[in-house]
Parts: sequence; structure tokens; C-alpha cells
Amino acid sequence: MADADALRDLLERDAITRLMVRYADRIDANDPVGAAACFALDGVGVYWGDYRGREAITERLTGILAGFHATSHHLTNVQIELTSATTAQAQSYVYAFHRLKGSFEQMHYWGRWVDEVEKVDGEWLFARREVVGIGSVTPGVEAGPDDHPGHPGRL
Amino acid sequence: MADADALRDLLERDAITRLMVRYADRIDANDPVGAAACFALDGVGVYWGDYRGREAITERLTGILAGFHATSHHLTNVQIELTSATTAQAQSYVYAFHRLKGSFEQMHYWGRWVDEVEKVDGEWLFARREVVGIGSVTPGVEAGPDDHPGHPGRL
Amino acid sequence: MADADALRDLLERDAITRLMVRYADRIDANDPVGAAACFALDGVGVYWGDYRGREAITERLTGILAGFHATSHHLTNVQIELTSATTAQAQSYVYAFHRLKGSFEQMHYWGRWVDEVEKVDGEWLFARREVVGIGSVTPGVEAGPDDHPGHPGRL
Repeated sequence: MADADALRDLLERDAITRLMVRYADRIDANDPVGAAACFALDGVGVYWGDYRGREAITERLTGILAGFHATSHHLTNVQIELTSATTAQAQSYVYAFHRLKGSFEQMHYWGRWVDEVEKVDGEWLFARREVVGIGSVTPGVEAGPDDHPGHPGRL
Repeated sequence: MADADALRDLLERDAITRLMVRYADRIDANDPVGAAACFALDGVGVYWGDYRGREAITERLTGILAGFHATSHHLTNVQIELTSATTAQAQSYVYAFHRLKGSFEQMHYWGRWVDEVEKVDGEWLFARREVVGIGSVTPGVEAGPDDHPGHPGRL
Repeated sequence: MADADALRDLLERDAITRLMVRYADRIDANDPVGAAACFALDGVGVYWGDYRGREAITERLTGILAGFHATSHHLTNVQIELTSATTAQAQSYVYAFHRLKGSFEQMHYWGRWVDEVEKVDGEWLFARREVVGIGSVTPGVEAGPDDHPGHPGRL
């Protein structure tokens, strides 16, 4: 790849990474509307069920976030593959710290974000974002081997 | 943004990210002088109180680090906005693992680094760096809802 | 550094970071062959002992991974210094979540990956990768001060 093409690829992946960071920031700000705005208008958020469109995603996230006093979603291991000038596939890791509302007990979650991303009017947005669990520690819940689907494609 | 401008923006943000990584490296190396050298000469470190200048920051960090056998500051979710050719604002996430000196008990901390950064003689340095807590787990301390200010701008 | 040189440096570091991410992905996919393919043909993996070449590394990783139901290696704080057009030195942080096979108990590990990297036929690969422990939490094991070597160069 010539440097000009490599730069273009790098800039697109940087923009997509910033989208991922913005999503986590909006979730941790308890801002479901801001998080849903990271999706394309007809984008699908998969949160143990499919939610299509910003209104449905906002409502779903509002319900999830209502249970927490604080959340902290730490994004790492970003992998992005451009599949065309305006589409990409991605996988990233998340470790999330939570404090439950009321009890202030801690909850921990380890997962993968598996994304389809598309560029709409010059802006990268999630066409589909699914969170896939690897493990969790939840107060009062005994962990079992089938709690989470695990790393995508695990052998 | 043309690619040449976008490259310049990317290079500046890369340099600032490397500064953040260097700071964590020097903290975890128990090197307060090296960490303080990441600040501008009149930079302010906010560690539950304002410390201005490298000497004051070094002294403050020396006091904090003296309590730990080991620390590990994991930096993620870097957000940088250039506000001029030589100034930027940033927010990043930190999860820090600690072992206390003596007891070897674990301490965990989740926070945000909120930074003002400036380019001095071609080198990015912290003009102001504040650590904002989201949560912590400290031996012998019961967590309460008002322990930490929480995610900046949380709704 | 002129922007063209800076871009080249950035692209090489990006390619090396992607190698690091791929390695973690293959480990967490329980794919020792895929992880070993991140090493040069005569590369050395240091996992509490030296393992030279992909076959030896595959065998060693197979043994390690056999003990886990799930792993999740979260890569942060990447530092890369190019030492020539085809060689580099790197340090990065890893926090790893594990669930043990059988008991499903959790294990946690904090460490550093210390790497020598080389470009072979246009592809960056590990010439030497050593994992250096900072701390761990292992079921049934009482933590002691000498369990881990600690942050490289700690004062």
C-alpha cells in the first residue's frame, strides 16, 4: 500500500476509533440519547435483543443505565477492517466497571464489541453494534460456564 | 479536512497520547521526577489539591507513591481536541491496580484524566492534569455514593 | 521530523500495534497456532522460560491455555521505538481476566509485554516477546512481595 493510501486507511480507522470512544463516553455520562446518536438512523443495537433506530436504542439504554450509580467502559484492542470506502467491520474489547444504584455494590463485565460501521454524509456511525460477553462478576450471582458466549470464533 | 491537515492533527494527537503513556510509565516506575517532567515548567497537577511546578508535583507524587509496593495505570479511551497549533484539551480513562506496601493488599481505582496540554519548544507537556475519580476499592474502606465526583458531565 | 517521515514512523507503529492486538485476539480465541504465527520463524517467546520457534511456542501456549475456560487480554499503554527500518523495541501493558476450566473461578493478571519486533518480508513479527508480571490474583494463592519482577526499571 502506498503511503497516501495507507494514510487514508489510518485516518478512517482513527475516525472509527473515535466513534467507539465517544460511545463509551456518552454511556458513562448516562446519556442514552448521545450514545444512540452514534448509530446510523436505521442502525441496530444488539443488547440481548435487537433494537433498531435511535429511539429504540435510547429507550433500551435508558432502561439498562437506570440500574447503575456509575459505569466505566474501558475500550481496548481495537481491530478495524475497511471493507469499502464507506463500510467497515470491527471488533474491540471492553472491560466495564459498574456500581449498582442503591447498594453501591460493584459489578464487572468483560466483553467484545462487534461492529458494522458505515460512513454517512462523511461521518462514521454504527450500522450494527453487538456486545458479546466473555465474563462477568455480579453481586449475588454464581458464575456458570454458559453465562456468556465467549470470544468470537473461540476454538 | 484535507489529508495533509488531517495528518498534522493525527500526528499531534499521537504525540499527546505518547505523553500520556510516558506519564503512566514513569508513575509505575516509581519515578516522580520523570512523571513531573511530563508537565510544563509552570504546569499544575491536581491530586486532591493543586500542585504547581515540577518540584511541587514531584514532592506530591513522592508522597503518594510511597504507600505502594506496585502500581499499574492502564490508559484507555483517549479523547484529544486541538484548540490551537500549540494547545489541546483531553480526557482519558485510567484503571489502576495497586498493591499496598507492607500488607500487599490490593487497591483498585477507576478514573478520568482531564488535561490541558501545551506545546513548548516543539514538545507537548501537561499545562494542567486533574485526576477525577469514578470508583475505587480500598482495603478496609466501605464504598459510599459520594466518594468520587464521577464521569465529567454525567447527567 | 518532516511529516513524510513522521507518517512513515506512525504507519510502522500502527502495524506493530495491530500485531499486538492480533496476538491477544488469537490467545483469547484459544488458538495457539495463530498466536505463534505472530512470531518470526526463529522468534523467542518467554513464558517463564524461553521457547524458540513457532512449534515450541505453540506447544507452550497450548499447555498454558488448557487450564482456562476463558481468557481476555486487554492491551494498553503501547510504547514503540523504531530502532531501524526493520527493527523496533516495544513495551505495552496487559490486564488479563481468566476463568479457570472446571471451577470457573476467576484469575487476574497485570503485566508488561516487552518486545523486540522485526519486519520480515514486509510483515512485522515478534523476534522476542517476554511477559513480565506486576501482580496477580489467583484462587487459593496468597500474594507475596516477590511473586512478580514488577514494572521494568522500577526505581
